[in-house]
Amino acid sequence: MSPQTSAADSTAGFIARHLGPDSTERDHMLDVLGYDSLDALMDAAMPSAIRQEAAPVLPEPVSEEAAQARLRELGAKNVVLKAFYGQGFSDTLTPPVIRRGVVEDAGWYTAYTPYQPEISQGRLEALLSFQTMVQELSGLPVANASLLDEASAAAEAVGLMSRAVKKGRRVILDSRLHPQVLAVASERARAIELEVEITDLSADLVGEDLVGVLIAYPGTEGQVTDPRPVIDAIHSRGGLAAVATDPLSLMLLESPGEMGADIVIGNSQRFGVPLFFGGPHAAYMAVSDKLKRQIPGRLVGVSVDAHGRPAYRLALQTREQHIRREKATSNICTAQALLAVTASMYAVYHGRDGLLRIANRVHERATRFAASLRDGGVSVRHDAFFDTVAVEAPGRAQELVDAAADAGYLVRPIDADTVGVSFGESASEEDVAALAGVFGVGTVVAEAETAIPGSVQRETETLTHPIFNSIHSETQMMRYIRTLGDKDLALDRTMIPLGSCTMKLNPTAGMETITWPEFANVHPYAPDSQTEGWRELITELEDWLAQITGYAKVSVQPNAGSQGELAGLLAIRRYHLANGDTERDICLIPASAHGTNAASAVLAHLRVVVVATATDGSIDLADLDAKLSEHGERVAAIMVTYPSTHGVYEDTIREVCDKVHAAGGQVYIDGANMNALAGLSKPGQFGGDVSHLNLHKTFTIPHGGGGPGVGPVAVAEHLVPFLPTDPTTADPYEETPVDRGVPVASTAYGSAGVLQIPWSYIAMTGAEGQKAATQHAVLAANYLAARLSDAFPVLYTGENGLVGHECILDLRELTDQSKVTATDVAKRLIDYGFHAPTLSFPVAGTLMVEPTESEDLNEIDRFIEAMVAIRAEIQEIIDGGVEYEASVLANAPYTAQAVTADDWTFEFSRAQAAWPVDSMRTGLTNKYFPPVGRLDEAYGDRNLVCSCPPPEAFDISDDS
Amino acid sequence: MSPQTSAADSTAGFIARHLGPDSTERDHMLDVLGYDSLDALMDAAMPSAIRQEAAPVLPEPVSEEAAQARLRELGAKNVVLKAFYGQGFSDTLTPPVIRRGVVEDAGWYTAYTPYQPEISQGRLEALLSFQTMVQELSGLPVANASLLDEASAAAEAVGLMSRAVKKGRRVILDSRLHPQVLAVASERARAIELEVEITDLSADLVGEDLVGVLIAYPGTEGQVTDPRPVIDAIHSRGGLAAVATDPLSLMLLESPGEMGADIVIGNSQRFGVPLFFGGPHAAYMAVSDKLKRQIPGRLVGVSVDAHGRPAYRLALQTREQHIRREKATSNICTAQALLAVTASMYAVYHGRDGLLRIANRVHERATRFAASLRDGGVSVRHDAFFDTVAVEAPGRAQELVDAAADAGYLVRPIDADTVGVSFGESASEEDVAALAGVFGVGTVVAEAETAIPGSVQRETETLTHPIFNSIHSETQMMRYIRTLGDKDLALDRTMIPLGSCTMKLNPTAGMETITWPEFANVHPYAPDSQTEGWRELITELEDWLAQITGYAKVSVQPNAGSQGELAGLLAIRRYHLANGDTERDICLIPASAHGTNAASAVLAHLRVVVVATATDGSIDLADLDAKLSEHGERVAAIMVTYPSTHGVYEDTIREVCDKVHAAGGQVYIDGANMNALAGLSKPGQFGGDVSHLNLHKTFTIPHGGGGPGVGPVAVAEHLVPFLPTDPTTADPYEETPVDRGVPVASTAYGSAGVLQIPWSYIAMTGAEGQKAATQHAVLAANYLAARLSDAFPVLYTGENGLVGHECILDLRELTDQSKVTATDVAKRLIDYGFHAPTLSFPVAGTLMVEPTESEDLNEIDRFIEAMVAIRAEIQEIIDGGVEYEASVLANAPYTAQAVTADDWTFEFSRAQAAWPVDSMRTGLTNKYFPPVGRLDEAYGDRNLVCSCPPPEAFDISDDS
Repeated sequence: MSPQTSAADSTAGFIARHLGPDSTERDHMLDVLGYDSLDALMDAAMPSAIRQEAAPVLPEPVSEEAAQARLRELGAKNVVLKAFYGQGFSDTLTPPVIRRGVVEDAGWYTAYTPYQPEISQGRLEALLSFQTMVQELSGLPVANASLLDEASAAAEAVGLMSRAVKKGRRVILDSRLHPQVLAVASERARAIELEVEITDLSADLVGEDLVGVLIAYPGTEGQVTDPRPVIDAIHSRGGLAAVATDPLSLMLLESPGEMGADIVIGNSQRFGVPLFFGGPHAAYMAVSDKLKRQIPGRLVGVSVDAHGRPAYRLALQTREQHIRREKATSNICTAQALLAVTASMYAVYHGRDGLLRIANRVHERATRFAASLRDGGVSVRHDAFFDTVAVEAPGRAQELVDAAADAGYLVRPIDADTVGVSFGESASEEDVAALAGVFGVGTVVAEAETAIPGSVQRETETLTHPIFNSIHSETQMMRYIRTLGDKDLALDRTMIPLGSCTMKLNPTAGMETITWPEFANVHPYAPDSQTEGWRELITELEDWLAQITGYAKVSVQPNAGSQGELAGLLAIRRYHLANGDTERDICLIPASAHGTNAASAVLAHLRVVVVATATDGSIDLADLDAKLSEHGERVAAIMVTYPSTHGVYEDTIREVCDKVHAAGGQVYIDGANMNALAGLSKPGQFGGDVSHLNLHKTFTIPHGGGGPGVGPVAVAEHLVPFLPTDPTTADPYEETPVDRGVPVASTAYGSAGVLQIPWSYIAMTGAEGQKAATQHAVLAANYLAARLSDAFPVLYTGENGLVGHECILDLRELTDQSKVTATDVAKRLIDYGFHAPTLSFPVAGTLMVEPTESEDLNEIDRFIEAMVAIRAEIQEIIDGGVEYEASVLANAPYTAQAVTADDWTFEFSRAQAAWPVDSMRTGLTNKYFPPVGRLDEAYGDRNLVCSCPPPEAFDISDDS
Repeated sequence: MSPQTSAADSTAGFIARHLGPDSTERDHMLDVLGYDSLDALMDAAMPSAIRQEAAPVLPEPVSEEAAQARLRELGAKNVVLKAFYGQGFSDTLTPPVIRRGVVEDAGWYTAYTPYQPEISQGRLEALLSFQTMVQELSGLPVANASLLDEASAAAEAVGLMSRAVKKGRRVILDSRLHPQVLAVASERARAIELEVEITDLSADLVGEDLVGVLIAYPGTEGQVTDPRPVIDAIHSRGGLAAVATDPLSLMLLESPGEMGADIVIGNSQRFGVPLFFGGPHAAYMAVSDKLKRQIPGRLVGVSVDAHGRPAYRLALQTREQHIRREKATSNICTAQALLAVTASMYAVYHGRDGLLRIANRVHERATRFAASLRDGGVSVRHDAFFDTVAVEAPGRAQELVDAAADAGYLVRPIDADTVGVSFGESASEEDVAALAGVFGVGTVVAEAETAIPGSVQRETETLTHPIFNSIHSETQMMRYIRTLGDKDLALDRTMIPLGSCTMKLNPTAGMETITWPEFANVHPYAPDSQTEGWRELITELEDWLAQITGYAKVSVQPNAGSQGELAGLLAIRRYHLANGDTERDICLIPASAHGTNAASAVLAHLRVVVVATATDGSIDLADLDAKLSEHGERVAAIMVTYPSTHGVYEDTIREVCDKVHAAGGQVYIDGANMNALAGLSKPGQFGGDVSHLNLHKTFTIPHGGGGPGVGPVAVAEHLVPFLPTDPTTADPYEETPVDRGVPVASTAYGSAGVLQIPWSYIAMTGAEGQKAATQHAVLAANYLAARLSDAFPVLYTGENGLVGHECILDLRELTDQSKVTATDVAKRLIDYGFHAPTLSFPVAGTLMVEPTESEDLNEIDRFIEAMVAIRAEIQEIIDGGVEYEASVLANAPYTAQAVTADDWTFEFSRAQAAWPVDSMRTGLTNKYFPPVGRLDEAYGDRNLVCSCPPPEAFDISDDS
């Protein structure tokens, strides 16, 4: 056996594990479709015009163990110092029970965004705890279920203020904000043509025409001043006050809400989330009651279910980008659910008392460090601080940073004359002494006074909800995590056939590596000499993604698909500006596009013009011609998804690209459906100038119950100069020249901490494996479409009657006949043990199904069996045997309590409700009962409650 | 804050997490009992006579993170070379999906031994797959659900042969067996006065009076010979043939069963279980049909449930030591369930085809290595082999071993002139070339012929069951693992109040470290220079355990409580023999003792004499006096559990010890109930000469669904010379002189791989934490006893009416009145979401409850609520409202299918069956439905089936 064979053997190993069907199943599925090979199927399904010229150049695939061994080598190239750097990223301790139970548990990390509330009550509860925690800390009544990072949260806050205060065009950013926050927020504001002023907001407020201010509390050097004067001043001018905070400091500092702030943002990384070389972690935003309907991102609310019992759901979805499209005010879709859950579990586990203990310990260490330095004759810049001490060291900052590194500590060179030392959860007595020693001080004082001025000391109670005061033992915590997790359906129990979302395998071999300390404990702003392993990994990944997509260069900085879109559109916009094409501000978007596309265009200050869809689902070329002739010189770009969200390989894509290019526009190809292309077709070759990828779709980062996502942007050669730049090296005080890019995230590599997952996936599959995955995804979708088409018409097909990697099942005719809606089918599938397909997107009244390459034949057949059985249930209504309102469909899903109740008033049987197909009774699968009945969606929006209900809400004494 | 305070602060951290009640709950519980402090309670409960003179000398407790940091340091002191050592331990790759889903999943590792089958169907199915795998590989019809290690499995095989063949007294062990197997099996055989001959069984068999032979197939040098001639020869002499095997080799070698063997043993470590520095891993035994009722260890069988559906259970329990006591034939209780599950999942995942691929690859590498050496002029000893090549290197073995180490490989110095090179799963092309290079051979041949002689090549099909041929993708595997895990109730969902079993928290901080490669990938026979970290850890742990128990020295070698007992009794026996007390062969055992005690005594060749129990549950001193006066000069020892299995601190324990000592006997104090002593009382100080501990009880190693256990033996100074010795340095050819110890396990440190768990627990708790844990355990038991005593009488109490750390609830009177048995109550508790307490031990008709220190007040109250509700259900029968047979108790537990069936024929309601208390309906806990109804225990033993049923067995078409 030669080494080559050996490598191929290993590959066969992993790719065979990744693919659902084995060769027998594959051949059976091909047989059903009438093709004799995967290649023949693909030749029939995928237009030759888009096929790649050559396979991506990737390393030979390696085994799971070899991939992990290589990652160990890369990890060993990182130097992990104890982090006292601060600047928005603090040393924290992830409780092992939370690391194992949440971050490393497939039930939590393979879950999808909780759009289907009945199968998502566990993570909805955890996210509601997150919101409640942010509300109580910030002192504001409404908080969202996380944002992407502090810098983009600041940008969202500025955007929110500019929309809420319609008069002004100026915003003031506090110069004491962290540099990365200033860099991102200022350019995001300028992109929508706000004037940005950066000034120290501990002084008085000056100027007029203000929409608002963003105040640092504490500031980046650790300084704490009372924000009330500035809040009052901006309010007196009719503007809004936003405050950027550190959540741990808010245990000791009075809440901004209590002081009159309208908006509070920050990031919860230090609540148990590893440094992760910058991300992912959950940022947050809280707002006053009057701004609650404008808050960006997901918002979990309390509603009631069909039995009148409290139940959780995503609230106010009608304000979100997938509904409002170009009228959307934010493009946030994916947030940081898994990390928000981690942070809220951390707060639940430590509780109010524990967090207070931690905050006091951190503060006590910092104050004694500062006092010791002063006693030793070293100047400390600020008298008031929480955890960070700015040490004056004229001309010697780098020297001292180096000395600290020699002692094992990472501290911050704030500038050439100042060193920042920021204390985190694990800072010990020994650390205080060692760090004092670095500054030449040999004696640590035994006591020091608090450095928090009386005027800002916290007096209002915080974290008073019982959830932060009831769980204290590890056993309780373990069970609480499991109890919540068990309420939800994730990939570890069933396929999740969500069109466009690509819920495929998240390989454990990749997942295991993200919590390795040699990666997870690296601070994002550590010097290059300490991050060689990380950067080597990222460079390899970016190169591989460029190979797969056919682009010149990739940046992983965007930490969600939405941010990738924004980065790509900003690149296009700046490219035109750099070319003097200042009038090109129109973005053509097909009617079938993801709503996020339009929202991102707005954030890049582009105007959206919609291009119609032809009856076959493809872009209407005549309408495209009309729009181009109408707007030609103003067209900045077209933004298309390929294959389209209709699940079809349109054969006109090259023509579309050519037409737009001819008009001087750029082509943005949304990579959401890259799972239908990878290894066979490269968007950068068939017409795209820029794409973003969703690494949490095609490249196996798990969805995490609604984040983290990673949305790298990939560009052709001429757009390379416009890729995102490092937020820490940007100068926020001056508008960035149009001939270069701007940062879009808090750190250069965004959610670096999960990049081992796509790295492993590509390393273990290689070019052949990527191709095989795509082929099997298309095979599965076509098999499913063919088997289901008698029951439910497939709305669109492409060449040879084939679909791409997903298909749309059209229920509208059946709805007309039976009143049964696509929603009813989605809810009824829960009783069969399935997560619903994508509901009413891109076409209302339909279900979009994407089985992915990772589902085996048996699971696909199980889904088909369920859908056929549901079709028969619909037929009963059509045939007049059952009234819709009395049908098993209209009342689905059924909880265990409902179906075991002593009274059973339905005409259909209990067995029909809970065990509709015999295969559920064999014991080979476990019956899943949803913990709540169907949610009353309207009730929750009418009665908006977005924090944890009191325990009495769950009292059942009034129930039957 | 001083460093001391800092340390104390950290401690408060972990011990507060370990303890269930917080200070408020603790005070409430004390209040109910009428004590104002824990110290006051303990003073009242625990006789002053046994209180320790001084606290154990342990390091100051550290935080979870500090403990892990210290373990990282220790791990870094180990040198992990790629293991080509063999000798029963092979390089293997644990599939990440199994590592994460089983080994690192609390649902699997915190489960108890599956005595309650209705809540154990998942692990019973996985263990049945293990048995089926062993059966198919070995060619014998019955296999058990694992044994402890290969060496003790060999000893069990010899014991089984000697019982089955009553005539002979001689056993022949193949000199080609691994040295550790010879060392343990020979001494275990000699201990029961068998004559042992060790000879090369590739030659003819000679001699008479033989009970049997144990043949190596393959041998320790890798050699493979046809065992048929020896099997035929022993059969013709009326003896039995046992064969020691390597399960991977059996993919290519004809099965011993097919060749006529009566018994097959081996170990399944190389089926995905890390080397773990020697253990834990699952050994196995398969036997012929005629020996099936004598097989030691657990045996999973198929029976039916109340609905007539297939259901799994432990079969033939009446032959086990806890029933048969001194008539037992083996003392095995805990086996290696978690590791057997791992190995069977490995077989399920790779399947027949995958295992064949692995076996062929291993063999191909070995053959080409051997051929290359021969071509290069290096002699290879054996022509026929599977994976191991014995290279002849006269006088140079150590030099070559060292050269291999320099190249990164661990190979075996078989003797001064021979090097063993054993190929494992991950052996690569590069490894073959590098190892050839070590022997001075620069060219690797491209092909080589098989080294398996035609006469032994496998021709019978193996692993034909569908379970080994249906799961191929990681997604399927992830779901299969979760599906099985979800069927079972473990500590991650509910308290498991099993008296004597101490189901307390298994801290995640300790659990996380066992799969760290720097520990898990160390071969047990690596030279000391490579294992410094491991040995330092073990030495510390042994010292700490000696401190806690008050003994002079501890050995962690015994890899289960049963083996600790055996090691301790062998030490006593050998001590007497060394003193010339050859007649001391009686072991006094109280009637209330664990059944294992008696079985272990028999294996140590001691005769059991039972001492009666007084009416208050304590040892009957008068009867003790009588027995001592009758047997005085023959008394070797008394074996007592303290506190007794009656859950009471007997105040006569010192008196008992004194009387036995006065008679010249030794005192063995069973440490099963150490959870009632640690930190407050040391058995080595109040009279014990030897104890064993159950690290999987008091010291937080999880039960793993029935193993691994660790049962260190602790001895006073005079017994130190008799502690277990290293099996690899023992000379099996000569009987070990009585003035020293003998080995009891395959490796010097037994199940080393999980010792980080108790190490962490002690490191994180310290002396004060140990004491606090004990106090809280006693508090919880007394609180529970006080709250339940109105409903169920507490059978025994000690001073001041208090119990120790557990209590016995007496149901016998209620059974007389209502027919409701303790079993009915145990089954009914499942409907309330609880695992049953210990059933009918030590007193038939009772339940023994041990809440442990880790359960919080709410969980204990939830249990009390359930028990009180059950008591009311019993009262209904007593009051005549309900017939027993028609009662909700007699028909419990209720599956989801049963309680949702369209027909409901019971008089009680569905709600009463499934939701008996309102607190279950709030949604704060999830309802657990058992996957099967009550097992028909008798059916399974009458119709013994111990392998996976065919899929048709689960067909429900005949069901209603």
